[in-house]
Amino acid sequence: MSENRKPIVSIVMGSRSDLPTMEACFNQLKEFDIPFEAHALSAHRTPDEVIKLSEGAKERGIKVIIAAAGGAAHLGGVLASSTTLPVIGVPIQTSALGGMDSLLSTVQMPGGIPVATVAIGKAGAKNAAILAAQMIALSDETLAEKLDAFKKSMADKVKADSVIEVE
Amino acid sequence: MSENRKPIVSIVMGSRSDLPTMEACFNQLKEFDIPFEAHALSAHRTPDEVIKLSEGAKERGIKVIIAAAGGAAHLGGVLASSTTLPVIGVPIQTSALGGMDSLLSTVQMPGGIPVATVAIGKAGAKNAAILAAQMIALSDETLAEKLDAFKKSMADKVKADSVIEVE
Amino acid sequence: MSENRKPIVSIVMGSRSDLPTMEACFNQLKEFDIPFEAHALSAHRTPDEVIKLSEGAKERGIKVIIAAAGGAAHLGGVLASSTTLPVIGVPIQTSALGGMDSLLSTVQMPGGIPVATVAIGKAGAKNAAILAAQMIALSDETLAEKLDAFKKSMADKVKADSVIEVE
Amino acid sequence: MSENRKPIVSIVMGSRSDLPTMEACFNQLKEFDIPFEAHALSAHRTPDEVIKLSEGAKERGIKVIIAAAGGAAHLGGVLASSTTLPVIGVPIQTSALGGMDSLLSTVQMPGGIPVATVAIGKAGAKNAAILAAQMIALSDETLAEKLDAFKKSMADKVKADSVIEVE
Amino acid sequence: MSENRKPIVSIVMGSRSDLPTMEACFNQLKEFDIPFEAHALSAHRTPDEVIKLSEGAKERGIKVIIAAAGGAAHLGGVLASSTTLPVIGVPIQTSALGGMDSLLSTVQMPGGIPVATVAIGKAGAKNAAILAAQMIALSDETLAEKLDAFKKSMADKVKADSVIEVE
Amino acid sequence: MSENRKPIVSIVMGSRSDLPTMEACFNQLKEFDIPFEAHALSAHRTPDEVIKLSEGAKERGIKVIIAAAGGAAHLGGVLASSTTLPVIGVPIQTSALGGMDSLLSTVQMPGGIPVATVAIGKAGAKNAAILAAQMIALSDETLAEKLDAFKKSMADKVKADSVIEVE
Amino acid sequence: MSENRKPIVSIVMGSRSDLPTMEACFNQLKEFDIPFEAHALSAHRTPDEVIKLSEGAKERGIKVIIAAAGGAAHLGGVLASSTTLPVIGVPIQTSALGGMDSLLSTVQMPGGIPVATVAIGKAGAKNAAILAAQMIALSDETLAEKLDAFKKSMADKVKADSVIEVE
Amino acid sequence: MSENRKPIVSIVMGSRSDLPTMEACFNQLKEFDIPFEAHALSAHRTPDEVIKLSEGAKERGIKVIIAAAGGAAHLGGVLASSTTLPVIGVPIQTSALGGMDSLLSTVQMPGGIPVATVAIGKAGAKNAAILAAQMIALSDETLAEKLDAFKKSMADKVKADSVIEVE
Repeated sequence: MSENRKPIVSIVMGSRSDLPTMEACFNQLKEFDIPFEAHALSAHRTPDEVIKLSEGAKERGIKVIIAAAGGAAHLGGVLASSTTLPVIGVPIQTSALGGMDSLLSTVQMPGGIPVATVAIGKAGAKNAAILAAQMIALSDETLAEKLDAFKKSMADKVKADSVIEVE
Repeated sequence: MSENRKPIVSIVMGSRSDLPTMEACFNQLKEFDIPFEAHALSAHRTPDEVIKLSEGAKERGIKVIIAAAGGAAHLGGVLASSTTLPVIGVPIQTSALGGMDSLLSTVQMPGGIPVATVAIGKAGAKNAAILAAQMIALSDETLAEKLDAFKKSMADKVKADSVIEVE
Repeated sequence: MSENRKPIVSIVMGSRSDLPTMEACFNQLKEFDIPFEAHALSAHRTPDEVIKLSEGAKERGIKVIIAAAGGAAHLGGVLASSTTLPVIGVPIQTSALGGMDSLLSTVQMPGGIPVATVAIGKAGAKNAAILAAQMIALSDETLAEKLDAFKKSMADKVKADSVIEVE
Repeated sequence: MSENRKPIVSIVMGSRSDLPTMEACFNQLKEFDIPFEAHALSAHRTPDEVIKLSEGAKERGIKVIIAAAGGAAHLGGVLASSTTLPVIGVPIQTSALGGMDSLLSTVQMPGGIPVATVAIGKAGAKNAAILAAQMIALSDETLAEKLDAFKKSMADKVKADSVIEVE
Repeated sequence: MSENRKPIVSIVMGSRSDLPTMEACFNQLKEFDIPFEAHALSAHRTPDEVIKLSEGAKERGIKVIIAAAGGAAHLGGVLASSTTLPVIGVPIQTSALGGMDSLLSTVQMPGGIPVATVAIGKAGAKNAAILAAQMIALSDETLAEKLDAFKKSMADKVKADSVIEVE
Repeated sequence: MSENRKPIVSIVMGSRSDLPTMEACFNQLKEFDIPFEAHALSAHRTPDEVIKLSEGAKERGIKVIIAAAGGAAHLGGVLASSTTLPVIGVPIQTSALGGMDSLLSTVQMPGGIPVATVAIGKAGAKNAAILAAQMIALSDETLAEKLDAFKKSMADKVKADSVIEVE
Repeated sequence: MSENRKPIVSIVMGSRSDLPTMEACFNQLKEFDIPFEAHALSAHRTPDEVIKLSEGAKERGIKVIIAAAGGAAHLGGVLASSTTLPVIGVPIQTSALGGMDSLLSTVQMPGGIPVATVAIGKAGAKNAAILAAQMIALSDETLAEKLDAFKKSMADKVKADSVIEVE
Repeated sequence: MSENRKPIVSIVMGSRSDLPTMEACFNQLKEFDIPFEAHALSAHRTPDEVIKLSEGAKERGIKVIIAAAGGAAHLGGVLASSTTLPVIGVPIQTSALGGMDSLLSTVQMPGGIPVATVAIGKAGAKNAAILAAQMIALSDETLAEKLDAFKKSMADKVKADSVIEVE
């Protein structure tokens, strides 16, 4: 988190082993200069901590929660069950089933409790940050402009490098 | 949309045949009294219309876009490619593959262009509305209170009816 | 539950719509004369109730918890996170993905928090009861004898009816 | 197995190549000081041995059987068919299908013969030990206390290390 | 089975509910005039009966065993573990997973114990009969000629009816 | 086929039971006024006929071959192996696996022998006709104009009916 | 592209990281001496560029478009939505789901907008080139002869090397 | 093949790259002293050769055909379409989908044309040899005795090494 500003995004990951995946999320939030906090907390090993974090999030100024977990990935759902803030879920790739387990247990939430699910792995981690920024930008015009610039810059980079020499 | 207020949520579905699924979304938005508009537009049959709608959305006062599509479900991605507003994707259940095709082609977006994906079918349609409300409520305290009340009422209903007589 | 004996098995299902599946569980427990209780409680809509139920289970005399849920089926995991009693998970069949989502989000639990998962649907519901009985029978010789008789009777029925007349 | 106490858990794996996975099970049982035995026996190559082991288990003082197998993983089912002791199944990860084959052939048991299935691979191996301990603890208060301590210690470790420095 | 000739094919199905599927097998064997027997025996409920049947099959004059089962379909594997006769496996279609569970638990046998697996459901049931006939025909020239005639007749029927009038 | 013009598209389906699916293909070809022929021929029951049809197709004036088959759908591959004309494959939906088997056995062709695969079922049947038209239109400007008009009309229909009244 | 002839095939890939896969496509087109162009353009990052490229393709003399993309692979669909030229889709293999996501989001197109899908990965890349050649050869007899020679040479190579010495 | 005896098993693999997998098949046949031949022939690149080989197999003294192929694995089906000898299919593991494509396109054959499918990869390759031996042994008592000895030896090896020292 840049300086001492209060975090407005809270990232929770199920295990410290998810850190290499979630760095893409950290970096993107930093690029948007969005202050955030990060926790390694397990929905199953520390349910109370997870719920406490979720229940108190809004009061602490958090606007969006990002949950990253693999396997029977309940973290997003548990966080979403205890807040009305939007919760974004990042399914972590798994060794046995590639992340299909993480994806289905994150996205297939019952009516009433959405988890905004993004792609499995690093692309999802990065997109979680962008999605959080898009939500926050609904009432933050400076950030909205950053998002526009980011989109334009992304397109420009692709265009500048789009021709492939075939001979 | 209630009365003549300007819509702030724009729902796009790939086909009119998605309407029975998306009614759960309409009803939930109405319950929250969120003005919305709805279109049946295909990412493949009318790409220009879809992009035009997406590009102009923010200026027209739209805050969140909800895309519902089945099969090779590109609608969410195409909408997301032309706006920095948050786009929510509802994968429609399909006859052959149950909606696994809709889910994967909605959620597995590349880094840079998130689609906030919810569950396949009606549960997802309802949750898309709630997720949109959660995003809008970040800067609308009245709606935030409605969401809190909704969550409490949902819990109360479950609790009131939680004991199953087994003899 | 037979008469007024205190329940020793607690069944929790994510929704009342799971009742037709879980009747196979009820019937099997009754056949073994095991007193049980049943609740319809959602891990996502009423997380506090679920955790309270789980945390207090042992003290109330519960020996085994059975959780039935579909989709992103977190119920078993949430119950297991708040007790050291064995938790059995029954994945409910789903319309879109057949129950593959329920199965993976029930069984793929991280190290430390097991959920004893049985088959999708009615076969699993019945087997959850038998598995609970097997656990309880470890210190209840009368029940152990019932299980032996049940197994023998099941085999006898199959044997008595095993020859198929082909002409 | 610690000293010469009689084993109360019997681990059967389909092949010696499953040993690296099952070490997580061994270690967890040792941590709980639960005496156990281990066999490499194939449901298909040595069905008689497997059935003999299962039929005689209860009489030898075994309380829980743990079966680990991959591919068309029948080991849990074959063991369960010849005993009324609880049988826990650990699906081994496979090269071609990631363990989806092992999982389905372990968990999808017909009504009457449950196999308590845990996660694919090492997390499942560890959880099989914990699940066995939970079953045995139903009538062993010392072990129940160990489980409570284990759970608390697991949570404490996570909590102590939960804050991730992001700058 | 025609008259009182001794059966040379033994069909075992896991449940009487598999009969509608397996009638295609019965009919095809009758068409080839191959005497057969049929049993409904469960690998899990009556393992001893299944193994006894398999061990004694060769001595009783059986040449090929056909096993039909659904879910965690161990029947083919258990039969194959107790005989050196060829065992054909028919995966039965299942409600939850369509028969993917039956297929994987039948076909993914470990090295040493093959089960000759055919298609899920009725096509597989019919093909099990044809495959059995092909095996027996290796030393039965009359049956080999029947198979040739069957193949020719099948082709002739298709050819006679191959032109589709499109106007 | 309209009047007595020589067919330039040859449709082969694995079974007459595929006709209801393939009518969408017939209708689309008729709409484009492309003369075609249709056969019900099985890659497995009548391989010689299939290969003869494929080998002679070009000489008879056929420009594109459309193959529709389900299950282990080899028809497209067998046709493609005997011609250098483009072969389009339509995977037929199946009862057990939804058409995933048909899709994979049609599309996963080895290097050297492509089958241009379209969607499972009726959408694919219709698209096979359009794809064939697109190929033929490369040297038929009249047809190219029809395709442009078709695309425009499809878009117009969607646009005319795109607004969904939500109140 | 050989010399300065105008390209008649346009290859678009979603990312430069798809180049190693698509080299098989380049090489095959060169072997057929078909002039082509190649672009790295993302359906999501540069939708306008992709549509512009597709809309202008026919006028520039392009006859076939080849689209290669992974994950939620919309590139083929977006290109196909803006042209009546045939579009071939190459699903790129992905780390998490092996390319099942790429395949389904490429092939499962709705009625009206076909994408001619080939196999996942390098075999598909090579086959895309051959399929493009087959389409172009419908009105280019020289290329048709090259395809015949290619097919014959491929068969000759296999035949020349078909005997495997087993002792 | 041992000495100059005429082969009675014919192995066909779709590509020389399948050799490392199929060596397990070769070795097992050699262990049983069954003379065999092996070919690398593609169902798609050399359909005529494959059909010729299949049509002439019986006359040349072949009793069983083994087909190994990956991806859209049509080899078993094409061979089976041209003979009434039993055809065994070995699905080769694939990079993208693990061999699920190979398995489904081998096993899901339509009624009338069975392919006796074994496990994906090396276990299947070995089992194809054993299954072929089981078929041939129906009329070869010496081989039948070898199979009995093989089964016994396999069991003995497992039993001799079955106890795992856990301390």
